[in-house]
Amino acid sequence: MENDKKNVFVHPSAIIYPNVILDDNVYVGPNCIIGEPTSSYYKSENRSEYEFMKTEIGEGSILRAGTIIYEGTRIGKNFQTGHNVTIREKTIIGDNCSVGTLGDVQKECILGNFVRLHSNVFLGEYTKINNYVWIFPHVVVTNDKYPPMDNLTPCVIDEYAIVAAGAILLPGVKIGKNSLVAAGSIVSKDVEDYHFVKGTPSKDYGRVENIKDNGKDVYPWKDHLNEYRGYPWQEKIEE
Amino acid sequence: MENDKKNVFVHPSAIIYPNVILDDNVYVGPNCIIGEPTSSYYKSENRSEYEFMKTEIGEGSILRAGTIIYEGTRIGKNFQTGHNVTIREKTIIGDNCSVGTLGDVQKECILGNFVRLHSNVFLGEYTKINNYVWIFPHVVVTNDKYPPMDNLTPCVIDEYAIVAAGAILLPGVKIGKNSLVAAGSIVSKDVEDYHFVKGTPSKDYGRVENIKDNGKDVYPWKDHLNEYRGYPWQEKIEE
Amino acid sequence: MENDKKNVFVHPSAIIYPNVILDDNVYVGPNCIIGEPTSSYYKSENRSEYEFMKTEIGEGSILRAGTIIYEGTRIGKNFQTGHNVTIREKTIIGDNCSVGTLGDVQKECILGNFVRLHSNVFLGEYTKINNYVWIFPHVVVTNDKYPPMDNLTPCVIDEYAIVAAGAILLPGVKIGKNSLVAAGSIVSKDVEDYHFVKGTPSKDYGRVENIKDNGKDVYPWKDHLNEYRGYPWQEKIEE
Repeated sequence: MENDKKNVFVHPSAIIYPNVILDDNVYVGPNCIIGEPTSSYYKSENRSEYEFMKTEIGEGSILRAGTIIYEGTRIGKNFQTGHNVTIREKTIIGDNCSVGTLGDVQKECILGNFVRLHSNVFLGEYTKINNYVWIFPHVVVTNDKYPPMDNLTPCVIDEYAIVAAGAILLPGVKIGKNSLVAAGSIVSKDVEDYHFVKGTPSKDYGRVENIKDNGKDVYPWKDHLNEYRGYPWQEKIEE
Repeated sequence: MENDKKNVFVHPSAIIYPNVILDDNVYVGPNCIIGEPTSSYYKSENRSEYEFMKTEIGEGSILRAGTIIYEGTRIGKNFQTGHNVTIREKTIIGDNCSVGTLGDVQKECILGNFVRLHSNVFLGEYTKINNYVWIFPHVVVTNDKYPPMDNLTPCVIDEYAIVAAGAILLPGVKIGKNSLVAAGSIVSKDVEDYHFVKGTPSKDYGRVENIKDNGKDVYPWKDHLNEYRGYPWQEKIEE
Repeated sequence: MENDKKNVFVHPSAIIYPNVILDDNVYVGPNCIIGEPTSSYYKSENRSEYEFMKTEIGEGSILRAGTIIYEGTRIGKNFQTGHNVTIREKTIIGDNCSVGTLGDVQKECILGNFVRLHSNVFLGEYTKINNYVWIFPHVVVTNDKYPPMDNLTPCVIDEYAIVAAGAILLPGVKIGKNSLVAAGSIVSKDVEDYHFVKGTPSKDYGRVENIKDNGKDVYPWKDHLNEYRGYPWQEKIEE
């Protein structure tokens, strides 16, 4: 671990493997493991000579108790985790993202900025999520169309999309920008930009602008979110 | 932590934050964290001056390894957890409740007495569960009808209700007393007292009394449970 | 713990309860608990006299950080876990099996050889899984037809079967050999050998041989898996 960073806190019970960079103001909570090695480390006859990939945790990140981040993963600033999160190797995460309690992000995923995963979201390997996406609890993002063939077709979730609780995205689906996937949907086909889908399997229910909350517009959410959430287009009124 | 309580066990690897009361005969297992602070603690410039809300764990509770309970939560007697449970701040839990392995109870929920959550149940903020309710594995209780607006309409689950494995309760639904939600149901409408629902989305299949196990009555379960489970209306015959 | 075994690694933060046998070349990662006692231990007035059942972890097994294995469980060689896995008491697991991150195997399950559970799989008590079965993320295997009666009818999954992500198996269903359960299915009826089911509730879509990947045969997977995965019928070409 590099030592020239300012105000880094690492709980004594946390494990920081070699070649980890914790940037300024990073907080690493109890029982966290940063730079967790991949499989070959465990099978190695000489673990002390294992060469760890570089792992980076950006400025101001808060890794809560029990977070495990594998080697080769790079995360931007102001990242936050809940508890008992696992993020596998060589995943790239932008700035201002969060992964909720029990989140399980498999290897080589790519997440943009301001991506927020609520509790217990599973992302299969190579999932790609663009900026400002919200994924709600217990969503499962798959990638293996003919399991266990491992001939993977990862999902792509475009910016401002919302995937509500308990939805399952089948391998290779593309979730369009500003779209909404209803809770519990099983999504087997691509979702068009600005469209709303729901059901098992999911069907298209038209444009998100047609969804009203007691007559009021709510989607696309970017245009109707009044509360301050730290987005760059928002003016900070209250803390 | 108060010291006048009898027979309290705290594993040396557990963390007890300030202003936590562990009542008589409480067991706190390895890697537990009790009184976990909320977000402002982590962002504070002076964590040593942070004022913790009071957290209480009732008499005879068993908190198994990896349980994390946030500050401001108050739990009654004989509470039990499985492993790697998270209970967020200002949640109120009555007596004789349990939260199974990987349970994730969000903030300001209210649970009555004898509420039993099996493994990996997610309760959204402000969920209200009355006495004698059973929630089975991987049930997801949501609260945000137009995510991510956070204009929350929490669910209410009334006494003696059963929510079977993998069901998803959509925001604001009321699950009636003595009702039964079948496994895998997606519940978008209120469930009537003593009614049985199933499907995606769920439909009403009539009264629970019509469900028979090889011709025998099984519901409402309170009237047909022979095995001793510690309920106040049961006579203890065997240990 | 027996001491005549070779090359056993136990992280200093791991807890090994009495009567645990770790065979040669076993790796026990941080915060693991092996031989975790059942409920009567916690309620006992004299824990130091508690008699632990024998727990065995086979040769070459890798138990990653946060794995908890209860007393009385016996596991064969080359077992691997992800993180924060829980395996309850008196479960029997054969050789070359794996349980992914957040896996939750309840008591007295029986798993054959080469059984692979991906992330966050829940197996209810007494589930029986034969050799060469794959279970994908967030699958829930139930057993209680009239909850909370606990009159259990466990599921049986026969050899070479595939259960894809997020599926729910209702109590007592038998999943036939070489069959395929599609992602998100709710399975209420037995699945025939070599058949493919999908839907909520699932329906039979004929034989797995009819599924093609761009015109190519893919099932039964045993006959079409080219990549080396360590199966006894495969010749090892590359490491």
